Amino acid sequence: MLTFTVEKTDSAARQGTLVLPHGTVHTPCFMPVGTQGSVKTLTPAEVVETGAEIIVCNTYHLYLRPGHKRIQAAGGLSKFTGWNRPILTDSGGFQVYSLAALTRVTDEGAEFQSHVDGSRHLFTPELVVEIQEALSSDIAMCLDECPPYPVSRPAAETAAARTSLWAERCSRVREPETNLFGIVQGATYADLRESSAKSLVSLDLPGYAIGGLCLGEASDVTYDMVGRVAPLLPIDRPRYLMGAGYPEDIVAAVRLGVDMFDCVLPTRNGRTGTAFVSSGRVVIRNSRYADDLGALDPTCDCYTCRNFTRAYLRHLFVVGEALGPRLLTLHNVRFYQRLMQGIRAAIEQGVLESWSRDFLDRCRSSSDPTGEANDR
Amino acid sequence: MLTFTVEKTDSAARQGTLVLPHGTVHTPCFMPVGTQGSVKTLTPAEVVETGAEIIVCNTYHLYLRPGHKRIQAAGGLSKFTGWNRPILTDSGGFQVYSLAALTRVTDEGAEFQSHVDGSRHLFTPELVVEIQEALSSDIAMCLDECPPYPVSRPAAETAAARTSLWAERCSRVREPETNLFGIVQGATYADLRESSAKSLVSLDLPGYAIGGLCLGEASDVTYDMVGRVAPLLPIDRPRYLMGAGYPEDIVAAVRLGVDMFDCVLPTRNGRTGTAFVSSGRVVIRNSRYADDLGALDPTCDCYTCRNFTRAYLRHLFVVGEALGPRLLTLHNVRFYQRLMQGIRAAIEQGVLESWSRDFLDRCRSSSDPTGEANDR
Repeated sequence: MLTFTVEKTDSAARQGTLVLPHGTVHTPCFMPVGTQGSVKTLTPAEVVETGAEIIVCNTYHLYLRPGHKRIQAAGGLSKFTGWNRPILTDSGGFQVYSLAALTRVTDEGAEFQSHVDGSRHLFTPELVVEIQEALSSDIAMCLDECPPYPVSRPAAETAAARTSLWAERCSRVREPETNLFGIVQGATYADLRESSAKSLVSLDLPGYAIGGLCLGEASDVTYDMVGRVAPLLPIDRPRYLMGAGYPEDIVAAVRLGVDMFDCVLPTRNGRTGTAFVSSGRVVIRNSRYADDLGALDPTCDCYTCRNFTRAYLRHLFVVGEALGPRLLTLHNVRFYQRLMQGIRAAIEQGVLESWSRDFLDRCRSSSDPTGEANDR
Repeated sequence: MLTFTVEKTDSAARQGTLVLPHGTVHTPCFMPVGTQGSVKTLTPAEVVETGAEIIVCNTYHLYLRPGHKRIQAAGGLSKFTGWNRPILTDSGGFQVYSLAALTRVTDEGAEFQSHVDGSRHLFTPELVVEIQEALSSDIAMCLDECPPYPVSRPAAETAAARTSLWAERCSRVREPETNLFGIVQGATYADLRESSAKSLVSLDLPGYAIGGLCLGEASDVTYDMVGRVAPLLPIDRPRYLMGAGYPEDIVAAVRLGVDMFDCVLPTRNGRTGTAFVSSGRVVIRNSRYADDLGALDPTCDCYTCRNFTRAYLRHLFVVGEALGPRLLTLHNVRFYQRLMQGIRAAIEQGVLESWSRDFLDRCRSSSDPTGEANDR
């Protein structure tokens, strides 16, 4: 139920096609995040218009509300949400640890209290596969244990071993048509990463993710880990770096052989007033934009940039109009799709290295200094 | 700068065309409210798609933020907001009394403290005309004194007299191309309403509004006042009943000869989860919709009704996704435009009375009982 074809390579970078039950995805791809079945503030039609071909939803959230049985009865998640295209569901491991209360993890699974109503639940590897099958996810993720950063070596070792054990159990119960991805753990310990990758590869899964990175460690550590793990993963399976969202991290990881990305950065930054533009970042509330009658990003073709001035966008944020977060989110999601289109074209033409250098130079040319402070 | 043509009448009801600097409006019309220069949650393109031809913005809000000079420098309000079509601006009288602090009204004007930062301002009749001219409003409203309901006869008398005095001053300073509307006051006192209407009509203004109604008084009182005032207004000028928003009130007022309406009801109710549908009201959070795979309103042609189930819309509201308020607002604004299209067609065909009866019967057929409680 998944066909992945590498069409072109440029050093370790790959440009390919991923055919899934609900549609085709061109890789390297960026998947906007729609945790609760909605890419925040946007309609499915708008997400399609940005060029996105697949989105990420969350098993933990959807299991709690509205419940996977309800979504199953509605014909699966793609139909329920009106997106009607491929969806990858994260297993919820990460959310259990970061959102739920009183989480107790044993080899059996992760017991937690709902952040919504305090009710108690147990996520086992088997249950998260069952939930994702009820959702008809195009790609289902194994339950993993994702420790925070930094983490001690013994804790990282336990988490990686448990993640492998759980992957085996997930793999055993999955329906043959379920596209189950394993998740490489091991924190920032190179040997743990390598043994985690090897044990998952032995399960012969349709795809592999690298989890537990982009959690606050230095970029060179992230790249080092990705650079060690990627070559250990099967060349004919898609590789997904979970949570990597800064354009520079995406470019770097593509060059290390990663095919898929997701992050809340474009949507969250959009909602809170920071736009990714070709020259860097724009913090739209900045008073310097109060009389700026130019487009948010003059090089962008999105609805926001074609129709509104920075002065009006700033006004919307200053007075708290919901249209502001919508328009900046729309732009940011489009920005990321244009980034991926640029990356794919550069791989096709065999010029990824020079393209990356030019892209990153432009990005650094005029960012608002307070850009990251606004990323809350 | 304003041409109003009554094309067809059906008893007192009129179907007409209002040509304004930024475009043509078919009457009777409903004007969605975009207080701060944005119809809440919607893009201008979406508002156009609902069929709306004119929106209402607010002088008080836009004067405070971003400031009328700034909007003037951006080419006027229609251009600044990207709406590019007709805009009526309310003078801000109502907002000064309802939102601002420490309002002190004298014959000179209304002194108030900004609800944003506490700064002190004085709205005179002359200033509100100047502001609305800076905004390039298609229709500007006179500054009026709008007392709350209920109000004593002496207070109503003072407010009506002051409103007439201010209208004269507004009229004296307006540029010839400014489409200035007078506002009839007089609360629920028939003789005050009549003398207010007569004194305003003597100013020979391009249009007239009936203000100070729909503030909580019984419907039959509203209709009685409208029914007394409308015949006193010139037959060849548009008549605007300010703030009337319930479909039944709009239908009743059209039958009394009113041409223009505005209200926050479709947008506010949409944001808070109550939809106007052909069978009445739907409170989407109601658990009865949790597994309802039908459209919000099966008779509606809006994007929401064409693409989403009640179950999904309910989920969006339950989990707090911004898309929920967007989709219900879009539907409600479309509902009101379809209502006005129905009214105009019925007048054209000379069947408004029977059409109104059928429409209101359908509306009462299956409303959620808690509909109005949710209208906060």
